[in-house]
Amino acid sequence: MSIVIIRQDGKINEWIASLKKNNSDIEVYSYLEAHPKDKITMAIVWKHPNGSLLEYPNLKCVASFGAGVDFIFDDPGFPRGVAVTRVVDPVLASDMSEFVIANIFNFLKNLTDYKSDQLSEYWNRRPYKRIADVSVGIMGMGALGSLAAKNLKQYGFRVHGWANSPKPNHEVRTYVGQTELQSFLSATDILVCLLPLTEETNGILNKELFRNLPHGAYVINVARGGHLIDEDLLEMLDNDHLAGASLDVFHEEPLPKKHPFWRHPKILVTPHTASVSDMDSVVPQLLENYNRLQKGAFLHNIVSAKKGY
Amino acid sequence: MSIVIIRQDGKINEWIASLKKNNSDIEVYSYLEAHPKDKITMAIVWKHPNGSLLEYPNLKCVASFGAGVDFIFDDPGFPRGVAVTRVVDPVLASDMSEFVIANIFNFLKNLTDYKSDQLSEYWNRRPYKRIADVSVGIMGMGALGSLAAKNLKQYGFRVHGWANSPKPNHEVRTYVGQTELQSFLSATDILVCLLPLTEETNGILNKELFRNLPHGAYVINVARGGHLIDEDLLEMLDNDHLAGASLDVFHEEPLPKKHPFWRHPKILVTPHTASVSDMDSVVPQLLENYNRLQKGAFLHNIVSAKKGY
Repeated sequence: MSIVIIRQDGKINEWIASLKKNNSDIEVYSYLEAHPKDKITMAIVWKHPNGSLLEYPNLKCVASFGAGVDFIFDDPGFPRGVAVTRVVDPVLASDMSEFVIANIFNFLKNLTDYKSDQLSEYWNRRPYKRIADVSVGIMGMGALGSLAAKNLKQYGFRVHGWANSPKPNHEVRTYVGQTELQSFLSATDILVCLLPLTEETNGILNKELFRNLPHGAYVINVARGGHLIDEDLLEMLDNDHLAGASLDVFHEEPLPKKHPFWRHPKILVTPHTASVSDMDSVVPQLLENYNRLQKGAFLHNIVSAKKGY
Repeated sequence: MSIVIIRQDGKINEWIASLKKNNSDIEVYSYLEAHPKDKITMAIVWKHPNGSLLEYPNLKCVASFGAGVDFIFDDPGFPRGVAVTRVVDPVLASDMSEFVIANIFNFLKNLTDYKSDQLSEYWNRRPYKRIADVSVGIMGMGALGSLAAKNLKQYGFRVHGWANSPKPNHEVRTYVGQTELQSFLSATDILVCLLPLTEETNGILNKELFRNLPHGAYVINVARGGHLIDEDLLEMLDNDHLAGASLDVFHEEPLPKKHPFWRHPKILVTPHTASVSDMDSVVPQLLENYNRLQKGAFLHNIVSAKKGY
C-alpha cells in the first residue's frame, strides 16, 4: 500500500519530505517519477491533471491537500466509488478568518484605496466606517464560515450566516435555504462568500443576489472563482449599487492579464492567499487517514460525492 | 461671555451650527467675522494662526477640537495662564483603536502591497503572518493607547505598553520610563506610537529606537509627525531592519509633493484620518466645559501646560 502525490506546482518533493519526516516507513511517490501504480491506494492531490487518477487500479482514497475538493469532482476521469477526503484544519480556518477580518477592516478604513492615492501622491481624506456601522453576512456556515462568524462576533461585529441546510450554530443567527436568502441579504452590508463550490452554488454571486444587498454593500469572495459571475459584479460596481469587492479567487488563476478586475478601482485582487495549507498542520491529518485506510477504519473528513462537500 | 472658533479648514460654520443646535442660547462667533473680542471667554481652536489668541483680553479657556494640544503650546503667542482643554472622546478613542487594528491586519496580510501589485497586474503570493506570530507594543498608554491595547488583547494579540510615567493598567503589562524602554522595544514586533507630542517625545521615533526593535519590525505612527525622524525611518527601512511603516501623521500636512514617503514601497501613507472628531460626540463636551466655565466650576480634561498633555 503506497501513496502518490499529484500536484503541478513544483512542491511535490517538499510534501514528500514532510510526510517522510512524520513517518519514515511510508512509501510515497511523486506521480512524475516511475512508481508501482498497482500498489497505490491513496492519492493526495491538488489540481491534478484530469484523468490522472484512472491510472491507479487499486485506489481507495483521493485526499485533497486543501479544504476544497471541487477540482476532484470536476475531473471527468474521477474514479467513481473512491472515497474523497479534504483537510479540515484549524490553522486553515483561523487563517481564513484572519484574512476575512483583514479585508473587512480594509473596507472600513479604506487602506488599499489610500495606497492607490499614495502612488499618485494624492492626499485625499475618505470617510471611514466603524465596526458599529456594518453588519456582516457569511454565506457558508461550515468549518470556515462558523469560525469567521464567531471571531467577528467576538470583535464586536454584528454577524449572521446563511447556509443551504440547517446548521447547529448557537453563536450567530443562521438563515437557511432559498426561502431565507433574501432576508439574509437585505440585512447584510458586508457579504463574505465561504460556500463550497457545487452545482447549486456555482454562479450564486450574481446580479440578482447583488440587487438584494443594500446599496453600498461590499462583497468578499474567498471561496472559489466559480461562485461569481464576473460581469455581474462589474455591472453592480459600475452602477454604484456595490461599494467594492475583495476577491481572492478567480475562474482562472493566476487571474489572466487584462482581466478587468486588475485595474478596477473598486476591486482588491489578492492572489488566492487567504489560507495556504500549512504542512505542519496538514501532514498529520493525511497520515492519520492513511493509517485508517490501511487498518480498514473509517476515514476522517470524507466528502459527500452527492453534495460535493 | 461668548465663544470664538478659530480654525483654518473652512469648517467653522458647520461647527457653529452644531453648537447652536445643541444650545441655541450660546453666543458663538467665527474669528473671521466681526465679533466683540472683549466678551470672548472661550476659544475653541484647531491649528489656529499663531498669535491669534492674544486678541482676547478676557480669555479663560482654550479648548482643542481634538485629542491633541501640541499646536496650542507651540504657539509663541499662547496666553500664559489660560486653561487648555482637550477632547477625551470615547468615539475618538474607539476610532483610533479600529484604525490601528486595521493597519496591523494590513501588515499581517499584505493587503496594500497586493494593491500595489494589482496596479501592475502582478500575481505575486507573499507570505502572511498570523495574530499568533506577533507582539504589539503601544507607546503612550493614555486614553487612546489603553483602549487600543485592551481591544487588541481581546482580539487575541499579545500586547504590552510603554508610558513615560506609571499608569494604572491591569489589562496589559506597561513598561515605564527610559529604564524600561529597551526591554519594551526588544519585545515588540509591531510598534504603535500613540504618545502625546511634548519636548520629551519629540523625535523619539529615531534610529536608536528603531535599532532596539527586532529585525523585521513594523512601525505605526498615528500620533504626530514630530515624533518621527523621517530620515531615520527611511534608513532603517532601506537597510531592511524594519519591514515597513504605516504613517498617518507628518511634519507637514498635507505631506508635501515629492516627499520620499509618497513613493516608498514599504510605507503606507494615510492622510491623517485615523480618528476624525465627530461633531455629535465632541460638541456636548465643549458645551459642558463652557457651562462649567460660566459657573466657575472645574473644567473637564484640562491639559497640564508643564507636561504638555
